[in-house]
Amino acid sequence: MVTKEWVIIATDRAKRPEDFKKELKIKDDIPPYNPKCPFCPGNEDPNEPEIARVNDENGRWLVRVIPNKYPALKPEGSLARLKNGIYRKINGFGIHEVIIDTPTHNLTTALLEKDQIKEIFKLYRSRFRELQKDPRIAHIVVFKNHGESAGTSQLHPHSQLAAISIVPTQIRHRVEETMRHYDATGECAYCNMINDEIKTQERIIMESPHFVAFVLYAAQSPFHLWILPKRHMASFSAIKEEEIADLSFVMKTILSKIYYGLGNPDYNYVIRACPTDSCNSKYLHWHISIVLRVTKAAGFELGSGMFINTSFPEEDAKFLRNISI
Amino acid sequence: MVTKEWVIIATDRAKRPEDFKKELKIKDDIPPYNPKCPFCPGNEDPNEPEIARVNDENGRWLVRVIPNKYPALKPEGSLARLKNGIYRKINGFGIHEVIIDTPTHNLTTALLEKDQIKEIFKLYRSRFRELQKDPRIAHIVVFKNHGESAGTSQLHPHSQLAAISIVPTQIRHRVEETMRHYDATGECAYCNMINDEIKTQERIIMESPHFVAFVLYAAQSPFHLWILPKRHMASFSAIKEEEIADLSFVMKTILSKIYYGLGNPDYNYVIRACPTDSCNSKYLHWHISIVLRVTKAAGFELGSGMFINTSFPEEDAKFLRNISI
Repeated sequence: MVTKEWVIIATDRAKRPEDFKKELKIKDDIPPYNPKCPFCPGNEDPNEPEIARVNDENGRWLVRVIPNKYPALKPEGSLARLKNGIYRKINGFGIHEVIIDTPTHNLTTALLEKDQIKEIFKLYRSRFRELQKDPRIAHIVVFKNHGESAGTSQLHPHSQLAAISIVPTQIRHRVEETMRHYDATGECAYCNMINDEIKTQERIIMESPHFVAFVLYAAQSPFHLWILPKRHMASFSAIKEEEIADLSFVMKTILSKIYYGLGNPDYNYVIRACPTDSCNSKYLHWHISIVLRVTKAAGFELGSGMFINTSFPEEDAKFLRNISI
Repeated sequence: MVTKEWVIIATDRAKRPEDFKKELKIKDDIPPYNPKCPFCPGNEDPNEPEIARVNDENGRWLVRVIPNKYPALKPEGSLARLKNGIYRKINGFGIHEVIIDTPTHNLTTALLEKDQIKEIFKLYRSRFRELQKDPRIAHIVVFKNHGESAGTSQLHPHSQLAAISIVPTQIRHRVEETMRHYDATGECAYCNMINDEIKTQERIIMESPHFVAFVLYAAQSPFHLWILPKRHMASFSAIKEEEIADLSFVMKTILSKIYYGLGNPDYNYVIRACPTDSCNSKYLHWHISIVLRVTKAAGFELGSGMFINTSFPEEDAKFLRNISI
């Protein structure tokens, strides 16, 4: 609908949702505090500028934002696009931040209090609002890598923000598709999806006052799901107080269903926001995408950009829907 | 140039090519014949139709093509696109074949004789030629998954072919970009790349009479490389006898450099061919893409479609160029 991408649902190879379940191993040997962890309280680097923090009533931090020590991008240099033979290049300008989700070393988002998740998302919002003002920033990506196969290198719960000076080509393609849909129909393709998913209920995992979560019709991998605000909103920075409280409940519920239902698989979540120059767009609609790292892309996917999904989105949705938290 | 995609070359995090090298472990315990392997000679399923084979002078097979026992697609059913609420679906029509690269269980392409590789590629070509005649086939992908993290499930050397009834969106985007380039300049973007890479030599790994291999300027991951025919050719099926012999030499050399230079990492290779209706295109140009599975895509990549590469293409190319085989 939004990407115009096809997915092969391999019915003959299809697995049942339970087949992806592994035994939940609670690692008792991981302490709540690790003296060697750079993200644990007390180990803060005094030479490192803190970007933002939320404190509890006793003045201890609950969530912190710091610069990424190994940034993929640097907040300096020109934005001019340079010719390099037949190619183009641009200086690697950008902001790369780490959000430390909690002071507690051995937790994960599914196990955090709803109010703690709310503070994390409020900090995301304040970083979006701040960085959107910078004319050098074209696009902001907030993401979390949970587990080794999702690309994480630090166990301590954290998420990341990358603000970049160009709009990635894949985002441009989605802008084009949804713009065309809007021009043809006067409607937001994402709003259409929300309404249709609520109507059929086939792929819905949960619905709250302000949000809906469903497995994608063309899910690229097992359990690939989106969480969308029901209110049309292009920019994540536009999320309101009561919506952010509701979202933290939805995030905790969905991630707990995954944690307990599938045995704490590795995953990534991403806030898919609009380019910063399109915050009032009628056809873009921010959402959270969650991808479980339970399968591997192979040569077919790399060679065609098209995914083979070995599970049925409707069954995956039913499975997660039925997990009680 | 061809995809218009950006890649972040993370210079601060950058690793040297040698950092990706692991110790080459020759597993002496894997026998050349495994009585339980379905791909080993003598274990052929008599109930399974063989699609093609090449024999040696004694009538023993050298390369075989068989149907995939767990196909992602099935060669039957209608091609009508059906409405499914706001979405579209299409019956999973397609051909999914396995090419058994060699009778010998414990080899890999880098260790095959050049003439054996030639027979494999000749079989690829004959499958392309055959399947292109079928009007239901819109696109053909030939690929290899080498190693577990590249998605393979059978150790015995094999590759795969998937012929599908739609053109994947990613391929369409490349068609659009290169068509626009052709209309603006009268030139094939791939031919432009070949000429420029040969001129600068910065990213070249090797050049042969008919082919050139280089690490991509915007390589998505360490050592991401393309092998292209110098002669403009949209369709892989147009490859000539002397070109296929030359290609088998280039494939053996490149894969040997990777095998010995980096300690047999997992990889995928893909023949990126044109859609079957565009075999005479002036702006499409088939090539082989090789992706080493030495890093993992994380949340940023999933959430933006944009890759962070932690190595320098020029240094990766130099490293591979200097490995003597």
